[in-house]
Amino acid sequence: MNERDALRTLAADLPHAGDDAAVVGDTVITTDMLHERTDFPVGTTRYTAGWRAVAASLSDVAAMGADATAAVAVYADASFDGNDLDRFVAGAVDVCEAVDAEYVGGDLDTHTEFTTASTAIGDVTDEGVVTRSGASPGDALCVTGEWGRSAAALRLFERGRDDEAGAGERGREGGKRGRDIERANDLFRFTPRVADGLVLAGRATAMMDSSDGLARSLHQLAEASDVGFALDRDAVPVHPAVEALADDPGERFELTAHFGEDFELVCAIPEPKLDRARAACPGGLTRVGTVADTADGVTADGDSLPDRGYTHGS
Amino acid sequence: MNERDALRTLAADLPHAGDDAAVVGDTVITTDMLHERTDFPVGTTRYTAGWRAVAASLSDVAAMGADATAAVAVYADASFDGNDLDRFVAGAVDVCEAVDAEYVGGDLDTHTEFTTASTAIGDVTDEGVVTRSGASPGDALCVTGEWGRSAAALRLFERGRDDEAGAGERGREGGKRGRDIERANDLFRFTPRVADGLVLAGRATAMMDSSDGLARSLHQLAEASDVGFALDRDAVPVHPAVEALADDPGERFELTAHFGEDFELVCAIPEPKLDRARAACPGGLTRVGTVADTADGVTADGDSLPDRGYTHGS
Repeated sequence: MNERDALRTLAADLPHAGDDAAVVGDTVITTDMLHERTDFPVGTTRYTAGWRAVAASLSDVAAMGADATAAVAVYADASFDGNDLDRFVAGAVDVCEAVDAEYVGGDLDTHTEFTTASTAIGDVTDEGVVTRSGASPGDALCVTGEWGRSAAALRLFERGRDDEAGAGERGREGGKRGRDIERANDLFRFTPRVADGLVLAGRATAMMDSSDGLARSLHQLAEASDVGFALDRDAVPVHPAVEALADDPGERFELTAHFGEDFELVCAIPEPKLDRARAACPGGLTRVGTVADTADGVTADGDSLPDRGYTHGS
Repeated sequence: MNERDALRTLAADLPHAGDDAAVVGDTVITTDMLHERTDFPVGTTRYTAGWRAVAASLSDVAAMGADATAAVAVYADASFDGNDLDRFVAGAVDVCEAVDAEYVGGDLDTHTEFTTASTAIGDVTDEGVVTRSGASPGDALCVTGEWGRSAAALRLFERGRDDEAGAGERGREGGKRGRDIERANDLFRFTPRVADGLVLAGRATAMMDSSDGLARSLHQLAEASDVGFALDRDAVPVHPAVEALADDPGERFELTAHFGEDFELVCAIPEPKLDRARAACPGGLTRVGTVADTADGVTADGDSLPDRGYTHGS
């Protein structure tokens, strides 16, 4: 059973599952696990790990249009280094402060692999939550921020590693490696779109965050709302770091639309509400297409957009 | 740095850390990681694992005297077996129902080791929360339930394993092994003392759950409240499963007071409130001693009670 089938099983069992966060009364709650092998490339600092782990959960609160209030996290490692733990907590505290929430602690555990599990909660506002299921044909398809940030970070982490491997021969590579890794860490510490989510609550008809990439997010929104999407490829805002790393337009689209883990918001907004929403979103809101009929499917510039993540070498 | 020092570091950084759960407005929140190597002995079913993982967090909500409302959990394993996942979710759903809360989903992840991270939230009642720091000399020292349940479970898991190892020689051991393992799973699925915690809110002056064992809990309460404790060893209610497994009184006290993971509540209650509290606690409330002055330290029958967990072979 793959992860998607497993999630379907869960959704069938749990009426509240299947959205970015669960709603319990006036509270939303969401939890995520990140661990070294799959989520923290070599070079990721503990400060960045703390920030990113908690940010992933805060992003899910944002995707519901709820007001993030607090987060907790489990920190598990083979041994407890006081400095590592301090830095992790500092990252968690700082990302919470960045979205006006509070980091209130968590749990410690020993584990063979550095592993984190973060949980965020938020208050449902008077506008109510925004689920994945309310988009209507004709609504504008919009995204926050700029795309490809995590893809660029991964490339810089890799380049930093390669530089290190070759440093003995070439010399003077340490500074360059350090800059790549530092830049990669910066890119990895995204700001969860809580403020934008609050603007979009009451305006967006459907919303989710883009943890699995733009293409997959569109397919998931399409399924939940029973609609199609017509994406305009050139309208997707590309992060400057991707511009610098990928010349080829095809590769650039791979990194921005398929790579994932950008944690931007993807939403549908009725045309009359678009201008106000655009003016009020602090992270920037860009129209990238239009909600279509179910029969039209999910397309990019008229061609079917595959429901897949990043493919290496394409 | 050991886990206790690491927790001190965290407590210094985070004003809300250091109690069983953090308080955020009218909500309490707490998170715990459990994983195969350290928390789920061979023979633990996925149903039991789901129950116990979520129960550990619900117990922390109970220890604050708050009303548990919901829980989420991360399920991480090397691969996703649909039956395993179904059973885990069923256990999580059932333990939430047992305390009138709701299991609202979670996250899936792949991991080298079966790992869970659960988070529970609860509402602060009009009585406010009960922290670890309000006990006064003269208060009655009380505990819920019966003690040694998890210690007995561990012994039964071990016995089941030993029987299996010798089954080829001795024959007809399969049924006995099965019964040991089944009984161990039953014992592992404790009921979080949420209902008792609600009774104790407004009555107990200090409270925590006993995840680290009675002895350690008393030392932690003593430090937080700046008091001592005079424990009456014979008053500690012993679970029948321990009675059946340990004849020697010294061994029995090891299993009930030092072993830990019983997730019962330990609290201080002013004498005038004791009878009502005792009558109202559905899990049973037993007086096991008295809060003493700081200078008297933590004692059991007049002797100093060491601040330690279970010691094998003692």
